[in-house]
Amino acid sequence: MILITGAAGFVGQHTLKYMSENLPNLEIGACVRSKDQALVSRFPKVQWFEVDLLNANALNEIIRQAQPTAIIHLASASSVGYSWLHPRESTLNNLNVYLNLLEAVRTHSKHTRVLSVGSSEVYGKVDIKSIPLLETHPIQPISPYGVARASQESLSQVYIDGYGLDIVITRSFNHFGPGQDSRFALPSFAKQIAQSKKKGEPVCRMKVGNVDVIRDFTDVRDVVTAYLKLIEKGNSGQVYNICSGEGRTLREVIEMMALQAKIELELSILPDLVRPQDLPIIIGSNQKLVNELEWRPRISFEATVSELMAEWTSHENSI
Amino acid sequence: MILITGAAGFVGQHTLKYMSENLPNLEIGACVRSKDQALVSRFPKVQWFEVDLLNANALNEIIRQAQPTAIIHLASASSVGYSWLHPRESTLNNLNVYLNLLEAVRTHSKHTRVLSVGSSEVYGKVDIKSIPLLETHPIQPISPYGVARASQESLSQVYIDGYGLDIVITRSFNHFGPGQDSRFALPSFAKQIAQSKKKGEPVCRMKVGNVDVIRDFTDVRDVVTAYLKLIEKGNSGQVYNICSGEGRTLREVIEMMALQAKIELELSILPDLVRPQDLPIIIGSNQKLVNELEWRPRISFEATVSELMAEWTSHENSI
Repeated sequence: MILITGAAGFVGQHTLKYMSENLPNLEIGACVRSKDQALVSRFPKVQWFEVDLLNANALNEIIRQAQPTAIIHLASASSVGYSWLHPRESTLNNLNVYLNLLEAVRTHSKHTRVLSVGSSEVYGKVDIKSIPLLETHPIQPISPYGVARASQESLSQVYIDGYGLDIVITRSFNHFGPGQDSRFALPSFAKQIAQSKKKGEPVCRMKVGNVDVIRDFTDVRDVVTAYLKLIEKGNSGQVYNICSGEGRTLREVIEMMALQAKIELELSILPDLVRPQDLPIIIGSNQKLVNELEWRPRISFEATVSELMAEWTSHENSI
Repeated sequence: MILITGAAGFVGQHTLKYMSENLPNLEIGACVRSKDQALVSRFPKVQWFEVDLLNANALNEIIRQAQPTAIIHLASASSVGYSWLHPRESTLNNLNVYLNLLEAVRTHSKHTRVLSVGSSEVYGKVDIKSIPLLETHPIQPISPYGVARASQESLSQVYIDGYGLDIVITRSFNHFGPGQDSRFALPSFAKQIAQSKKKGEPVCRMKVGNVDVIRDFTDVRDVVTAYLKLIEKGNSGQVYNICSGEGRTLREVIEMMALQAKIELELSILPDLVRPQDLPIIIGSNQKLVNELEWRPRISFEATVSELMAEWTSHENSI
């Protein structure tokens, strides 16, 4: 069995979809906080486990019984903005959850391979000369979320070297695609532009945070294929960037959306949306993943943006 | 008010003693899990707060009311060995407790200076060429305890740079002295030797872990004066090693104790006491602390060892 945590989330649903469609003989397990009937109906083959991952005993029992071949650990409070507002809850729902998972594996299912899904936020502020970032670049997180993700990596190394666990570590850069919650930047932009368009407004007036930061975006479905390749062929103890290698300012992305929607744009900075500190630029090198696992991103940035605009125009979840 | 967390612990009691004796006009607050009447009688001037530091609401209330000038954060599950056996509890009682403390300060008493007491365990395995370790040396913890302490440092930087808190960070190397629990190495050796001596045994047969590791020991009372100097004059955001700059194998220390007690020694390795992985050598440079704050250790290693032997021979707590 491959067990997915955070299975009801954005990446979780895409992972279930990919596995259900492409790996018909695979036994799939899914941890969710509470079972959603719509989701259960969409994935009839999946075995569901209802669990709060902060409940160590309940998680132990699931791992003890399931004895999964591998776990793709997607459960996370993955918003950097949220972590600035609620650093305690963010840490609990990242690091403590991960620690519970490792403890469950260590004590009840030591053969299980764990995919520690992490984040490019661990790099922190980097010199422009270090771009694109290699996995060997020192990490120095600058947000509560980044600290939790960096701790997750260190903890992984201790469990590998000290307890003999089998863990592959990712630094996943920004990813996007249909089905992402509009608390995140790109769907939030798409939603606002689509709404303006629908109302027939001549100009979409949008309040934004710092849109001059540069990010590296990958389609979520390309990220999912990377996760499955890493489960199958990644090296334990190794860290892998998952990214496109291309940087874009958020401003460019908003402009692309407005152009596709054929609407004028007027941006104004809302100080509340500006974070205490943010990464000016983050672009990764995906050469390790490309060379070792023959992965490459297949879906173009423009194509995903079109899909996102279509989703928020029709208002249908299109995972 | 200077508020001490972990005030009933080994370093906590020494800190209360030092402050009570040397700083008569200072208002002292002490957080303890439960009030111990003997301790309360010994320090009549101290204001006591009974609190489980994992209880965020209770801690918030204390900080909101006390508005301390500074907090010396000593509360910690500080045993590396314990962290290997109970990584989850160790992490909760280090990182989560610290996060609760920072949140209490951020939300209720932003002017409070926090002394983030940390550990040399953050350095991990280091090349012999890097000895003595400077604060600028990269950190790479290899135990669950070390990971929690490294996360504490990263979190401190985020709270300084992102939220504007005033935090001074220590990397305290091994410290010892009267009153330390015999779960720790040196008091455990002293106790066994003293017991053998008392029973009139010709040879003290001792089961030990890896006693060839090299550590840097400072008397706890010298560590306490460093903490008070750092509260007064340390620079926010800076990291300070607290150490003697001298390395000794545990074997040397045991032999010194046996020599003082005039007893023969026979050591045998108990595999259960050997940790999954350990630091072969750790010696720090104290030049930053010495140069910036004119601190220096005053009590010789031999003198503290004598005191320890006397303590375990008489079986009286001599803090």
